[in-house]
Amino acid sequence: MGEFDFIARHFRPLAGKGAMELRNDGATMSVPVGEELVLSSDTMIEGLHFLPDDPARSIAQKLLRCNLSDLAAMGSRPCHYMLNVSVPADRHYDERWFTEFAEGLEADQKQFGMTLLGGDTTGSPFPLMLNVTILGTVRRGEALRRNGSQPGDGVWVTGSLGRAALGLQVRLGKLRHADTSLVEAYRVPTPRVGLSLYGIVSAAMDISDGLVQDCGHIAEESGIAITLFEELLPFSEAVRAHLTEYRETILLGGDDYELLMTCPADQEEVLQKHCETHGVPVTKVGTVTEGQGVTVLDKHHRPICFSRTGWQHF
Amino acid sequence: MGEFDFIARHFRPLAGKGAMELRNDGATMSVPVGEELVLSSDTMIEGLHFLPDDPARSIAQKLLRCNLSDLAAMGSRPCHYMLNVSVPADRHYDERWFTEFAEGLEADQKQFGMTLLGGDTTGSPFPLMLNVTILGTVRRGEALRRNGSQPGDGVWVTGSLGRAALGLQVRLGKLRHADTSLVEAYRVPTPRVGLSLYGIVSAAMDISDGLVQDCGHIAEESGIAITLFEELLPFSEAVRAHLTEYRETILLGGDDYELLMTCPADQEEVLQKHCETHGVPVTKVGTVTEGQGVTVLDKHHRPICFSRTGWQHF
Repeated sequence: MGEFDFIARHFRPLAGKGAMELRNDGATMSVPVGEELVLSSDTMIEGLHFLPDDPARSIAQKLLRCNLSDLAAMGSRPCHYMLNVSVPADRHYDERWFTEFAEGLEADQKQFGMTLLGGDTTGSPFPLMLNVTILGTVRRGEALRRNGSQPGDGVWVTGSLGRAALGLQVRLGKLRHADTSLVEAYRVPTPRVGLSLYGIVSAAMDISDGLVQDCGHIAEESGIAITLFEELLPFSEAVRAHLTEYRETILLGGDDYELLMTCPADQEEVLQKHCETHGVPVTKVGTVTEGQGVTVLDKHHRPICFSRTGWQHF
Repeated sequence: MGEFDFIARHFRPLAGKGAMELRNDGATMSVPVGEELVLSSDTMIEGLHFLPDDPARSIAQKLLRCNLSDLAAMGSRPCHYMLNVSVPADRHYDERWFTEFAEGLEADQKQFGMTLLGGDTTGSPFPLMLNVTILGTVRRGEALRRNGSQPGDGVWVTGSLGRAALGLQVRLGKLRHADTSLVEAYRVPTPRVGLSLYGIVSAAMDISDGLVQDCGHIAEESGIAITLFEELLPFSEAVRAHLTEYRETILLGGDDYELLMTCPADQEEVLQKHCETHGVPVTKVGTVTEGQGVTVLDKHHRPICFSRTGWQHF
């Protein structure tokens, strides 16, 4: 198949304002006065970030949602994305696969209010590689950061944790007799787009590399220490059923794409009300103190020792 | 090596305003009032878009310059770029390689006035894959397009053509006893950033997929026909020496990264003066007429027949 026909068939219907119908190597985008751009970029590689037999639709959604989660972590509203696809010639990534892939993109474009702006399609010896650079906007100076945590703040997370990490274990055939919703959580995360947390939380990021490692990022950037209480961590029943056997997987595993925040005591009620209004569960799971590093305390308030910290990309 | 140390060593020194020292998954960028953003994205894959033994420095420069050329084609000034790198674990892409790669990025950042804004680093089974999304600005509504050519316009190109296509043949060992400057042209193109052609030219793009194919894009987008005159095409001596034997490679080969423009007759002098002021050679090579498609006429004004149209990405 030719590059230009391929783009026209699958991606042109997804193109929005400024994309020039993908007929140009470039695209244009306006940023409203008083706002600034927020950008993030994530690559997904077959075999590393998804499995070749994952549904094309869910691969597309995960690709967008990982990036959407980065915008959510900065308090930004999505508007466009650039898509780069490197397609192996000799594999099962055929017309049907890309039709389903485009359907996944389209569904999430509608759900999250954004359009395709441009990108690049190329052949590849192996494997399938997907990359999105996502573009959102935020009121100037109001992007959430990782470096504002203060001793005395609480540590908060949205949603529940560990489902995606266990879902991966199910997919790899290592965990049997588990709830099928775990696989779905691994395949199609729920980015917490749409909250307005500027002025409420003191630091925010999304949990992509694992709770402990990502708390470490906030601790390092803010120059503080974080203590987490295992008994406070929000786990679904499906996760709780495996907590003893898979404790490290659950606490260190990535792919949650929930928000991790620190919040001053006097803003806790505001945070809870705001999240409630938006239908987003939020739970206080720890505290910020002076010092450095991350400690997880078990129900007897003894520190848990881990064999690693979290996901290393390479 | 760990991802975070790797980024800190090689890429943090390249980060500019809004990049948050690459400590965040996201970045911010302001766009001045009255301007809009121009974006373009290009992927380069080992073995397809560069050769594993090309110098790391020149691979970095080519990566940026292909993208810079897309901005140049739209009349946009570069300001930032997002960099995505997928690194194979078992090959020669080691500390030294990435040190030289970062030196290439740094040199071009300085030359073209831009900084690293963010991106993504991941492991990869194979091969090395590099992707840049480049960001520039242009006065609102003044981005150059491909669809404004009118019958009666002239067809113009900057610089000289065919050097990179022959340079690739040299690199592949197919062309011997050629000028070494050809290889340099293949490895490090010269994007024509800095011209201000809005209101002068009627359409513009960069020549990346080959002169004939790229003329075809303008013809199709503008709904016109283009006739090129082989005898008018600007070739260096090093290219002219191989014109008989490598005619198709030279006329169809890509990687020139020169500007291809159409210009109304009453703007020709302005175009020539503007390019002269900026030290950019410019040559009239053809005409725009009613109709469709691209024809190349030889010195006897007979149409040249080609076996293919140009570079297909897959």
